[in-house]
Amino acid sequence: MPEELRKGLEGVLVAESSLSDIDGSAGRLVYRGYAIEDLARNTSFEEVLYLLWEGHLPTESELEPFEAKMAEERAVREEVLSTVRELAAAEENPMAALRTAVSMLSAYDPDDSTGEAGDGEITQRKGRRITAKMPTIVAAYKRLRDGDEPIEPRTDLSHAANFLYMLNGEEPEDTIADVFDMALVVHADHGINASTFAAMVTASTLSDLHSSVTSAIGALKGDLHGGANQNVMRTLLEIDEHDLTAVEWAREALESGERIPGFGHRVYDVKDPRAKILGAKSKALGKAADEFKWYSYSRAIEEFMAKETGIAPNVDFYSASMYYQMGIPIDLYTPIFAMSRVGGWVAHVLEYQEDNRLIRPRARYVGPEDREFVRIDQR
Amino acid sequence: MPEELRKGLEGVLVAESSLSDIDGSAGRLVYRGYAIEDLARNTSFEEVLYLLWEGHLPTESELEPFEAKMAEERAVREEVLSTVRELAAAEENPMAALRTAVSMLSAYDPDDSTGEAGDGEITQRKGRRITAKMPTIVAAYKRLRDGDEPIEPRTDLSHAANFLYMLNGEEPEDTIADVFDMALVVHADHGINASTFAAMVTASTLSDLHSSVTSAIGALKGDLHGGANQNVMRTLLEIDEHDLTAVEWAREALESGERIPGFGHRVYDVKDPRAKILGAKSKALGKAADEFKWYSYSRAIEEFMAKETGIAPNVDFYSASMYYQMGIPIDLYTPIFAMSRVGGWVAHVLEYQEDNRLIRPRARYVGPEDREFVRIDQR
Ligand SMILES: CC(C)(COP(=O)(O)OP(=O)(O)OC[C@H]1O[C@@H](n2cnc3c(N)ncnc32)[C@H](O)[C@@H]1OP(=O)(O)O)[C@@H](O)C(=O)NCCC(=O)NCCS
Ligand SMILES: CC(C)(COP(=O)(O)OP(=O)(O)OC[C@H]1O[C@@H](n2cnc3c(N)ncnc32)[C@H](O)[C@@H]1OP(=O)(O)O)[C@@H](O)C(=O)NCCC(=O)NCCS
Repeated sequence: MPEELRKGLEGVLVAESSLSDIDGSAGRLVYRGYAIEDLARNTSFEEVLYLLWEGHLPTESELEPFEAKMAEERAVREEVLSTVRELAAAEENPMAALRTAVSMLSAYDPDDSTGEAGDGEITQRKGRRITAKMPTIVAAYKRLRDGDEPIEPRTDLSHAANFLYMLNGEEPEDTIADVFDMALVVHADHGINASTFAAMVTASTLSDLHSSVTSAIGALKGDLHGGANQNVMRTLLEIDEHDLTAVEWAREALESGERIPGFGHRVYDVKDPRAKILGAKSKALGKAADEFKWYSYSRAIEEFMAKETGIAPNVDFYSASMYYQMGIPIDLYTPIFAMSRVGGWVAHVLEYQEDNRLIRPRARYVGPEDREFVRIDQR
Repeated sequence: MPEELRKGLEGVLVAESSLSDIDGSAGRLVYRGYAIEDLARNTSFEEVLYLLWEGHLPTESELEPFEAKMAEERAVREEVLSTVRELAAAEENPMAALRTAVSMLSAYDPDDSTGEAGDGEITQRKGRRITAKMPTIVAAYKRLRDGDEPIEPRTDLSHAANFLYMLNGEEPEDTIADVFDMALVVHADHGINASTFAAMVTASTLSDLHSSVTSAIGALKGDLHGGANQNVMRTLLEIDEHDLTAVEWAREALESGERIPGFGHRVYDVKDPRAKILGAKSKALGKAADEFKWYSYSRAIEEFMAKETGIAPNVDFYSASMYYQMGIPIDLYTPIFAMSRVGGWVAHVLEYQEDNRLIRPRARYVGPEDREFVRIDQR
């Protein structure tokens, strides 16, 4: 029987995994068996990294040295910062800048960059370092392109709080740091999404982890994936500026055949559980600031989409207004997604390489057959 | 019926393609219907790029402006060269250096780097620029790490000859430039190999071409893919140094369960047609230099492997001794593979995005179910 075409690989099982499970019709997501709602409410991003990389939630005495090792790795070499400076001067797209800077990190990683060929210990050390340094790169980029000098990381703050500190030059309020930490928790893993798969395809050749993470950043950047969160916020701003109702905007966009950013998902038929968690936070932030419009535009679009199309919001829909209300520049939303999802990328590479096989599919050839060759002087 | 696990995606059809077709049991490879043997013998790399990107072999009047446009794009900005300088100083792996430098090119590309969202014209312009600049980066890296200054590209030489000129500081002999050009031709495309697939997964999110090519470079770097050509040459040198017979070495390696680099292929059951073409060139170079050992070690391994395992050589097996006899440093073999395969990467991205769909497979979840959450202070 000839193989059927599996364009987009919808439903194709490429690996076994113990990392996260999605029930697309129940709207349920677990990391290693723990419901995302519990993790979002009760764990720090560092605990979730430990869970993903080590297989269980840490005790206090396991977590402490893990956090300390992560914190020590935050600083980024001057050579890399100077490339980030050039990229900021060139007004490079922040995801592209992050891709270049993470790729460059490999030159200075204490483990060498010829490829760890499936050695999980090396991969995990590299993963810890990359994860620790990504916020430093993102914050440095943002400050440099604003004409400010980068701020050195501190080791006495959490991963989330330290990022906000490096971004803004002052320690964040606890409530804000907590919301940000929660955002990192809920974005950390999501099965074999496109960026994770890009990381796995790269890892399957036994390339090094910096190659895998660089591939994944490039994939996350796209509008159909992580890039959507920026587009959601641009949409909300457009509605606000042009004094459109959210429903008017959404109807027009649908009618002109556009995709509505932040809606739809390959795996969920119902509302993404992460959208529920983030939606509640977005609402709470609005309430605290007595400024409801961002949340209410979003709700209106959600209701309209449910009625007209039955398509529900995904993770990117409410993170947008949430980050906006935290004062984070729009073009950093996708780099922040990357700062979190790197946890999943590393975990999936570790898991896949434990029993590695080259990922090498095929195409159905539909081109010309047996063309007769003619030399250029006779064409 | 539950989906079966397709680990490695062997035989899974992920797309339709008119670019290249492999008949794995006949040992036949065509680019858009033309046999690889005809193309290797009679076309330049530039003609093959035109064939892959435009769909037909160019006439002289089509080729001329195409070559001129490519040649004009060879120079690389000072900012990128200065990052390459840092990478060379840090003794970064050359494939990793290439990955970083190509990623950085996007900051200076005249088309912007937020993502062309499937606009084929932008993708093609970017593809031409990246392809034109990769040899300049590889040559600059090699000279800098040897303590020499980079040499600026010339526009009056072919793609192949200009690379050898920038590498060595002198114009290559015609026969050598021709062999190198032929090597670029035979490596340019090969269906949905792992690096091409990494490029496609990245492109399927509607990310930009620099992201796709950066992903692909990272994937090509691995030992199971492009990295194999370096390992082949290291093997031949080991045999030579330790005064082993090639068969002794191969028997030992097999017995200790190692993979023999340059052998085996997901798609070919018989000898890779490219290995035949490259083997003949490797032999001819040996003859011209009156130095047969590299070719004869290789032949001996090939015969032993055929007898013992039935596994045949792939493209990486004879390219190794061929490049070695051309005086090319071993760790540049894989970057040179990238300089050629970029033609295929760009072509597949162009083709896939014409009718794009997000590539997003799934995993079979085999982790724990319904774990009860316990807060850290109670663990
Ligand atoms: C995420 C996404 C790429 C999933 O794509 P997919 O699984 O390949 O789904 P398909 O492209 O097959 O879409 C199925 C149908 O739903 C529609 N649809 C999906 N998402 C839609 C959206 N956001 N707006 C409008 N229609 C949408 C499609 O038009 C399609 O209808 P059709 O078959 O009549 O053309 C897609 O939903 C999307 O583009 N969303 C917007 C971008 C986004 O938010 N990405 C972030 C995801 S976390
Ligand atoms: C290219 C390659 C990754 C293809 O892998 P694949 O399609 O996944 O093939 P598998 O790993 O399923 O191998 C099939 C069998 O052939 C054997 N085999 C494949 N290539 C081999 C090699 N180079 N040396 C020894 N045995 C080899 C495997 O051990 C396996 O036998 P097993 O089932 O008893 O374990 C594989 O042939 C390889 O590792 N080659 C060496 C690296 C190389 O040259 N890569 C460049 C390719 S262009």
